[in-house]
Amino acid sequence: MRPSGRQPTDLRAVKITRSYTKHAEGSVLVEFGDTKVICTASVEARVPRFLKGKGRGWVTAEYGMLPRSTTDRMGREAARGKQGGRTLEIQRLIGRSLRAAVDLEALGERMIAIDCDVIQADGGTRTASITGACVALVDAISHLREQDLLERNPLVNMIASVSVGVFQGTPVLDLDYAEDSNAETDMNVVMNDKGGFIEVQGTAEGDAYSRDELNAMLDLADQGIRQLLEIQQAALSG
Amino acid sequence: MRPSGRQPTDLRAVKITRSYTKHAEGSVLVEFGDTKVICTASVEARVPRFLKGKGRGWVTAEYGMLPRSTTDRMGREAARGKQGGRTLEIQRLIGRSLRAAVDLEALGERMIAIDCDVIQADGGTRTASITGACVALVDAISHLREQDLLERNPLVNMIASVSVGVFQGTPVLDLDYAEDSNAETDMNVVMNDKGGFIEVQGTAEGDAYSRDELNAMLDLADQGIRQLLEIQQAALSG
Amino acid sequence: MRPSGRQPTDLRAVKITRSYTKHAEGSVLVEFGDTKVICTASVEARVPRFLKGKGRGWVTAEYGMLPRSTTDRMGREAARGKQGGRTLEIQRLIGRSLRAAVDLEALGERMIAIDCDVIQADGGTRTASITGACVALVDAISHLREQDLLERNPLVNMIASVSVGVFQGTPVLDLDYAEDSNAETDMNVVMNDKGGFIEVQGTAEGDAYSRDELNAMLDLADQGIRQLLEIQQAALSG
Amino acid sequence: MRPSGRQPTDLRAVKITRSYTKHAEGSVLVEFGDTKVICTASVEARVPRFLKGKGRGWVTAEYGMLPRSTTDRMGREAARGKQGGRTLEIQRLIGRSLRAAVDLEALGERMIAIDCDVIQADGGTRTASITGACVALVDAISHLREQDLLERNPLVNMIASVSVGVFQGTPVLDLDYAEDSNAETDMNVVMNDKGGFIEVQGTAEGDAYSRDELNAMLDLADQGIRQLLEIQQAALSG
Amino acid sequence: MRPSGRQPTDLRAVKITRSYTKHAEGSVLVEFGDTKVICTASVEARVPRFLKGKGRGWVTAEYGMLPRSTTDRMGREAARGKQGGRTLEIQRLIGRSLRAAVDLEALGERMIAIDCDVIQADGGTRTASITGACVALVDAISHLREQDLLERNPLVNMIASVSVGVFQGTPVLDLDYAEDSNAETDMNVVMNDKGGFIEVQGTAEGDAYSRDELNAMLDLADQGIRQLLEIQQAALSG
Amino acid sequence: MRPSGRQPTDLRAVKITRSYTKHAEGSVLVEFGDTKVICTASVEARVPRFLKGKGRGWVTAEYGMLPRSTTDRMGREAARGKQGGRTLEIQRLIGRSLRAAVDLEALGERMIAIDCDVIQADGGTRTASITGACVALVDAISHLREQDLLERNPLVNMIASVSVGVFQGTPVLDLDYAEDSNAETDMNVVMNDKGGFIEVQGTAEGDAYSRDELNAMLDLADQGIRQLLEIQQAALSG
Repeated sequence: MRPSGRQPTDLRAVKITRSYTKHAEGSVLVEFGDTKVICTASVEARVPRFLKGKGRGWVTAEYGMLPRSTTDRMGREAARGKQGGRTLEIQRLIGRSLRAAVDLEALGERMIAIDCDVIQADGGTRTASITGACVALVDAISHLREQDLLERNPLVNMIASVSVGVFQGTPVLDLDYAEDSNAETDMNVVMNDKGGFIEVQGTAEGDAYSRDELNAMLDLADQGIRQLLEIQQAALSG
Repeated sequence: MRPSGRQPTDLRAVKITRSYTKHAEGSVLVEFGDTKVICTASVEARVPRFLKGKGRGWVTAEYGMLPRSTTDRMGREAARGKQGGRTLEIQRLIGRSLRAAVDLEALGERMIAIDCDVIQADGGTRTASITGACVALVDAISHLREQDLLERNPLVNMIASVSVGVFQGTPVLDLDYAEDSNAETDMNVVMNDKGGFIEVQGTAEGDAYSRDELNAMLDLADQGIRQLLEIQQAALSG
Repeated sequence: MRPSGRQPTDLRAVKITRSYTKHAEGSVLVEFGDTKVICTASVEARVPRFLKGKGRGWVTAEYGMLPRSTTDRMGREAARGKQGGRTLEIQRLIGRSLRAAVDLEALGERMIAIDCDVIQADGGTRTASITGACVALVDAISHLREQDLLERNPLVNMIASVSVGVFQGTPVLDLDYAEDSNAETDMNVVMNDKGGFIEVQGTAEGDAYSRDELNAMLDLADQGIRQLLEIQQAALSG
Repeated sequence: MRPSGRQPTDLRAVKITRSYTKHAEGSVLVEFGDTKVICTASVEARVPRFLKGKGRGWVTAEYGMLPRSTTDRMGREAARGKQGGRTLEIQRLIGRSLRAAVDLEALGERMIAIDCDVIQADGGTRTASITGACVALVDAISHLREQDLLERNPLVNMIASVSVGVFQGTPVLDLDYAEDSNAETDMNVVMNDKGGFIEVQGTAEGDAYSRDELNAMLDLADQGIRQLLEIQQAALSG
Repeated sequence: MRPSGRQPTDLRAVKITRSYTKHAEGSVLVEFGDTKVICTASVEARVPRFLKGKGRGWVTAEYGMLPRSTTDRMGREAARGKQGGRTLEIQRLIGRSLRAAVDLEALGERMIAIDCDVIQADGGTRTASITGACVALVDAISHLREQDLLERNPLVNMIASVSVGVFQGTPVLDLDYAEDSNAETDMNVVMNDKGGFIEVQGTAEGDAYSRDELNAMLDLADQGIRQLLEIQQAALSG
Repeated sequence: MRPSGRQPTDLRAVKITRSYTKHAEGSVLVEFGDTKVICTASVEARVPRFLKGKGRGWVTAEYGMLPRSTTDRMGREAARGKQGGRTLEIQRLIGRSLRAAVDLEALGERMIAIDCDVIQADGGTRTASITGACVALVDAISHLREQDLLERNPLVNMIASVSVGVFQGTPVLDLDYAEDSNAETDMNVVMNDKGGFIEVQGTAEGDAYSRDELNAMLDLADQGIRQLLEIQQAALSG
């Protein structure tokens, strides 16, 4: 039924490659099928103005797509002179989600800047970004701990994210672009490794969705995120 | 328990004033307690470029806050030269939600532009905006129908929106600023008058939230939105 | 003769409502007929860079129009990414005029930011803004004085403003939009309560105007501003 | 009494050089003492969008200052990414004034773009710009007439402009920077060669000004503009 | 002598991977040692405005760096709201160079947009970009030819580019970052496969360079570009 | 053969006028035939952020063209809201070139800002700018030395610049616009008074150029720059 031939409960092939580029403290290539995102975590010895002198750190995120990561070439945001609403919305979601993984006081007065740059898009770029960025974040924190800069571990839990939706009447997990662009409902879920919800964002694209559909989607998301958390652990112990 | 003395299941006093300003086809002042938003609906005889010649209409939305609608004065976005991420996120939500109220083909090749401008903020500006804007939208559609410009009614259902959250461990309805800024979880829900979900956006501000908390919040939202739909109807038949 | 049926020497109905919104130190809704402007005065404990350490304060102003305050919807300046020339010109005029009401040394190193936001436009938005903003300014100064933050009263005089013009050959006071858009000459006058001129800005829209017409317009303005100063006093003692 | 040793009724040495640069249809260097402005008039075979198909032309103006035209270097507006409020205000004034010299219907569907670029500033750059630009405009119109592109002469009258002010209690004509920066009142007047007023813009910099002072300033302006109109004629017949 | 241990006449290991991403008509990952750039060529069925209706095509280029492609994180140009001078200079060079490889009339009224995005930087990003982009361009042209859209082959020759410089007194080929940041002179050379020069850009970073040094650098560049042209051919026949 | 009737080895008439405007520490009008550029050098008692506290100075440059300095009117960059790529490229070149004339440590913690504003363009604006700006720079340094602010002379050598190209098969010196817009190759060369190269930027506009053509152009440039250095000296001793 699904264009890809997957079962409704199947994730795409997920692959997490650490140390993908050489300069960043954490650098991950995350692949959810044909969706490929470079996630880097950069440690900076400063905090935003509103946190100066408060003894706490910060995690922030930026998101971008290469112009030809998509089927048709998109205008380059740097050339157009501003980031679009979709971009800002996604990077706010990524930053908020990752801050839920970190004890900002344990981080001290420093910042970790996450960059998620999509080099190939096939649906689910924001969920892949969050899932990959959390691994890059762990590597950046390890880098700080190896330098003995932290008194205690600021990582409070792992987080991962997946999309779920209703496609041709059936709730499905981890939508690719062919599904995403035709789904009746599209929901992005971020959870932590204790099974708690960080974010639930569900949008009816066509008809409204029922409470039952909502529940079915959340069940799928919960199961998919468990698998993603295992793939993250495998990558981190690799 | 709540700073305002309300019960967890209480909405604030909600008031919808139609024909608030004189130029717009639909013009509403919506008040959720001390939160006051002017919502106008403007009919324009054109559609965005991507819809040209397709025989369909469009509903779009913009959102803004007067600089001193808030406790401390915020910089004016027009002076800063761009709309912030929060603004863009909210106006995308308002537009998407209102399009779920309208049959865009029945609207024909014209656009309804919704403007939601907050003149006083006390939490819940986006849910008040959606709830008020739907009434302004109805008036703008009536304006078109009175001119015999539409073959059939493009309004497919009413929508309304409310926030729910977990405040000091208890799920509560329609958070004001005092609650919102201290809530563990903040969720905005948009539903239609058939009980279907248009949007669910729930964010853990502090700890993650459980499936049980999510369900309790959705129950509260469902009950609150039913009341808001009645208040809309009363205003429209007033 | 006038579209509104007024005599050439008649102001429109003018109404000043104080404490219109709850957060600002001064908050006024000013109405000149159908022109309605929210004027807020915000006290800030800082001065612009060029005044730092000089022991003097500052009064500044910003002006905006809600997109559908006008007959046809105007593009939102925040969305277009810049304030237009007309907006900048008006807010410079408002700021300059209000500074003529204040002893900036008596204000100390703090700033009062005036925001004038037009919610409904029917001609004369800048003159209504100045007239209303002066009342908001007085309330903001009273707020500072109640906190015992000022050694002496920085208010040196009241100011008010009105438009005059030549409409169908006759000098008229306080033009509404129907007159303004067809006037041969349009002049905005700002005066203080000692009868001194703060600003005179007269523009020939069609033919040039003569010295006699200029004098007739100034006579009308003088008389109108006296009335506005009385309405301000009535509002302040209300 | 005046820093320059001039009498209150004296203009500075005014010089108008035509054909100053070679590409523009009209190109003038205007000097009011040490204030030097290059004014060009460019004919373009198009009109702004709002005039398309209406059979009328347009005159528009832009104004700029070289970064080191002033005592201290100012930031370049092109590098800062926007024109400041003062610049926009001045170029709006120049454009409005010059349109009062032209019959836009006689001009046909074409545009004359005026550029006033200050290469050395010593007070009165806007009045020098208007006075010089009117000569450049005449040359551009002559250029069109020589090509037989116009049925009748679109020039309806000449305009010129001068500043007047109150300096150390005395009304003075054509203020230089030393006076301008210390004047109590600063007024810019634009008149045509029939003695009619196009623009009067008078600002109290310190104390308010009286009706008597206003009248004295207008008398001075009237007399100065008569001289400027003669200097324009001499240049045009040169 | 060189930090990398290379001989003065040695290129770094160069690798060209075609079909690196799936959406673009041409997609190449080019590696010059640790410098890695994704070059895509996108065919678009339109030309810039200045070429409309002229029967000719266009090749344009844009360049960007991922924020953490560098040792320290650079601000994202999309977030800063503009492309910097270095970026614009490089993308103008890439576009100009690639147009020298193409017969724009044979291309017909269509555009090929080249995007060069640096994912890891270690010196020589512009020369790697040009060398890789030429291969992506060939693939995009082949794509057009396979669809029988072209009457004749628009590819007139191959081009490649390398940097040369004077490092510690010795002319060296293909500088990496360690050399580039300490070189006395830095020269980028673009040549075609007939041995002709497309661009020579040589900058003295410290002392000026002599005619002899210039000649020695050009000899090195000539030899390095011959090798790069062979590596391109090997990739294209792979 | 050349449109101007010049021999291939002829410069245009070059004229350097010092003290052209009165405010700047160095102010030069440079003319290369009909190309006229105002070059000012402004001393500022500050350095860019990246040099703070390092005991070194800086020389920076900005470049602009008056809108009607060209055959057709160009849009004003300040009005368009950004400097174009060509502008940024030229001002980066001017700044880099002039820094090669100065010992930045001898300058101390201060900045010299060069502004090159083209008032009439006829080809070669960047080479004229560099040649004129170097004279303005000398005057600004003399100004500092006269005030006894420098321990030693920061001027290490003079620099000058000229364009060379291949026009109708023949290498020619100092191209005017008629040649420049039809040249096969265009090269800008900056040299110092010891005969060393500061910059060589050669671009094939049509066909690629050969090593022999490159050598012929460099010979011409070398000879032309020697003459320009003499003209600079004559102006400085004038």
